[in-house]
Amino acid sequence: MKSDLDQILEDNNIDALWVTGPGFNNPVMVYLTGGGHLTAADLILKRGQPPLLFHTAMEREEAARTGLNTRSYGSYPLKELLEEAGGDYEQAMALRLAKMFTDAGVTRGRVAVYGHAEVGPVVGALPRLRDLLPEVTFVGFSRDPILMRAMMTKDKDEVERIRQVGVKTTQVVDKVANYLTSRPVNSDEVLLREDGQPLTVGDVKAKINLWCAEAGLENPEPYIFAIGRDGAIPHSSGNPADVIRLGSPIVFDIFPVEAGGGYFHDFTRTWCLGYAPSEAKHIYDQVLTVYRQIVSELEVNAPFRRYQERTCEMFEEMGHPTIASDPNTENGYVHSLGHGVGLHIHEKPFCGANADAMDILAPGSVVAIEPGLYYPGRGIGVRLENTFWVTPEGRFESLTDYPMDLVLPMKS
Amino acid sequence: MKSDLDQILEDNNIDALWVTGPGFNNPVMVYLTGGGHLTAADLILKRGQPPLLFHTAMEREEAARTGLNTRSYGSYPLKELLEEAGGDYEQAMALRLAKMFTDAGVTRGRVAVYGHAEVGPVVGALPRLRDLLPEVTFVGFSRDPILMRAMMTKDKDEVERIRQVGVKTTQVVDKVANYLTSRPVNSDEVLLREDGQPLTVGDVKAKINLWCAEAGLENPEPYIFAIGRDGAIPHSSGNPADVIRLGSPIVFDIFPVEAGGGYFHDFTRTWCLGYAPSEAKHIYDQVLTVYRQIVSELEVNAPFRRYQERTCEMFEEMGHPTIASDPNTENGYVHSLGHGVGLHIHEKPFCGANADAMDILAPGSVVAIEPGLYYPGRGIGVRLENTFWVTPEGRFESLTDYPMDLVLPMKS
Repeated sequence: MKSDLDQILEDNNIDALWVTGPGFNNPVMVYLTGGGHLTAADLILKRGQPPLLFHTAMEREEAARTGLNTRSYGSYPLKELLEEAGGDYEQAMALRLAKMFTDAGVTRGRVAVYGHAEVGPVVGALPRLRDLLPEVTFVGFSRDPILMRAMMTKDKDEVERIRQVGVKTTQVVDKVANYLTSRPVNSDEVLLREDGQPLTVGDVKAKINLWCAEAGLENPEPYIFAIGRDGAIPHSSGNPADVIRLGSPIVFDIFPVEAGGGYFHDFTRTWCLGYAPSEAKHIYDQVLTVYRQIVSELEVNAPFRRYQERTCEMFEEMGHPTIASDPNTENGYVHSLGHGVGLHIHEKPFCGANADAMDILAPGSVVAIEPGLYYPGRGIGVRLENTFWVTPEGRFESLTDYPMDLVLPMKS
Repeated sequence: MKSDLDQILEDNNIDALWVTGPGFNNPVMVYLTGGGHLTAADLILKRGQPPLLFHTAMEREEAARTGLNTRSYGSYPLKELLEEAGGDYEQAMALRLAKMFTDAGVTRGRVAVYGHAEVGPVVGALPRLRDLLPEVTFVGFSRDPILMRAMMTKDKDEVERIRQVGVKTTQVVDKVANYLTSRPVNSDEVLLREDGQPLTVGDVKAKINLWCAEAGLENPEPYIFAIGRDGAIPHSSGNPADVIRLGSPIVFDIFPVEAGGGYFHDFTRTWCLGYAPSEAKHIYDQVLTVYRQIVSELEVNAPFRRYQERTCEMFEEMGHPTIASDPNTENGYVHSLGHGVGLHIHEKPFCGANADAMDILAPGSVVAIEPGLYYPGRGIGVRLENTFWVTPEGRFESLTDYPMDLVLPMKS
């Protein structure tokens, strides 16, 4: 949790954070500022002190809205920096950074660098900063032990934002369900558009895009609306030309984010329109059984990985191949049970091969639970997914409120 | 232009490029790959050779679609890397990068680093790479002399994409104009919504957002739809609560990008609904006069800055303060005449204080031309802007096709 950050910094022997880049589409910056329309910013946080946010002169008001201590880049006039740097622009930028660190009280120790930003200016500044601030060591991580640990558990404001994204997401999902079930159907059981042409995956996605935009949601990575064989390939987002027909399983996996790149929510349903063939119904029933069983078994502070193992065990008992018995299988249960959800769609805790001792279902975690079964050769894929909050009291509360039914009856 | 890249690398004594990060919302990666849904990638370009694109195993097909030579990260199994790194994950990632550079033929020389990406992994890898590839020097830039120079001039495919964004943008603008002029108006000259309530800037922006989404356009930074005093403050994006009324100047400055972060287009109109007060009409006429005069004077290969000076000169002659006579003025002409437009909304050539010898109107440049006048105390701001292409033959061709009228007559 954000309130643990100082302790986490101390545990990792880190004296300060430097976060660079815009105020949006930049998870760590959004985490520490709350988000906003800053097009360029730097945040320096010295352990034990409130952060200092640097911003362009023009974005003074937007910066003030974060409630943080702020300082304009204009406090370091470019003309003076260039003089001091002998006209070398790259050196002038490094001088400005050195002054910013000094003004934030950071002149020695280990500084961890973050930001979803242009990497060039950082790569260019680092060797110069080493000369200007010789007692500072800049460190960075591929597998981040600091922010990822803080962000793994959420405070109530964060949970509320994830819940609200869920409310908006299920409103969009409900519009999709209503639209589909209101369509006329031709003699081949194919749904028809307003103009009488067959309704395609592409048509439905165009509506989903519009409804998401209307709700203030973005989909930075392609979501999945896939029918038949495509739904049985977990990473296929759906073929735009596929027509929508009765009885063929549709996997609808959508994970929108607040516009501008804030908190995510993760959601999957599998639908058969009108009726479900017995084979699809059978697979769906098994996935729902495992989903319910797993949700009933979840325990606070348990290693998340335990439930991946349990899921494999249950599916194997039902006679399905899983990645536990065959890591390369494309049939049966082929992915991991879930993942943390927050400012990243996939974050800690994890439960797959990359999970470590930190990946527990701690109070404050928000996790997606998404068992599924896939048989591409038979055109059947089924996945069900809701996003859960582990409350401070250790209960598992679903933040996703939507029916899990397989069959959506047609309205006419 | 992209075809100049090898020469530009040679001029800057750069032996290779390393571009990291996703395939979208990452201008240099989009430039060199054409864009796409790669969630994680690295591209290494050795001078004089075609680039090599590294991708996740799951995104093999998406990577192949770029037409580049590709290699999966799976060619460097994590298990083996971790063994070689004695279990240190960060070292394993650096080892993978060192092998990738080696496989791309880059084992010595100066490598320029690019990418809109997480900076942490790069900051963490660099000191380790220095040990693993001791003959390689990694460099980065705040003011980039390489890609910015290549990207400054566009080939025909790029111009076509910018033109198409312009077509879609003006279609959205036309919807806005039609919507506004079809509104009923109350006795206070305030436009009314469908439900009879006053129409606000926020209401109009909600429609614009929707129509942009429908057209496959994104607005990563807030566009401007501002009325009255707000329109007279160039960096105000508009107060959502302001009501739309007849006769009050509206500045509508919108610069959408292809969804996923591709090419931009820049567009501004100033509108008075129903009628224009004589003062607004007078200011508008002067801005239009300067706009037309400047466009008529533009010469291929001229320093762009010359026209900023000419604009100041003309506005001063008309009796307006400008930043040429008072750099801090908030009245009159207060910004620069334009900028290059491409994969960045602001790129070379520039014409303001930051312009240098490279900032000429070279054949292949695409530039926004946007003179304006601002009088916040009188509630009047006027700006007019189109995006121009300097053709290979040296003509200035507008890529923006939309009337420049001030007054939009109400339809009823």
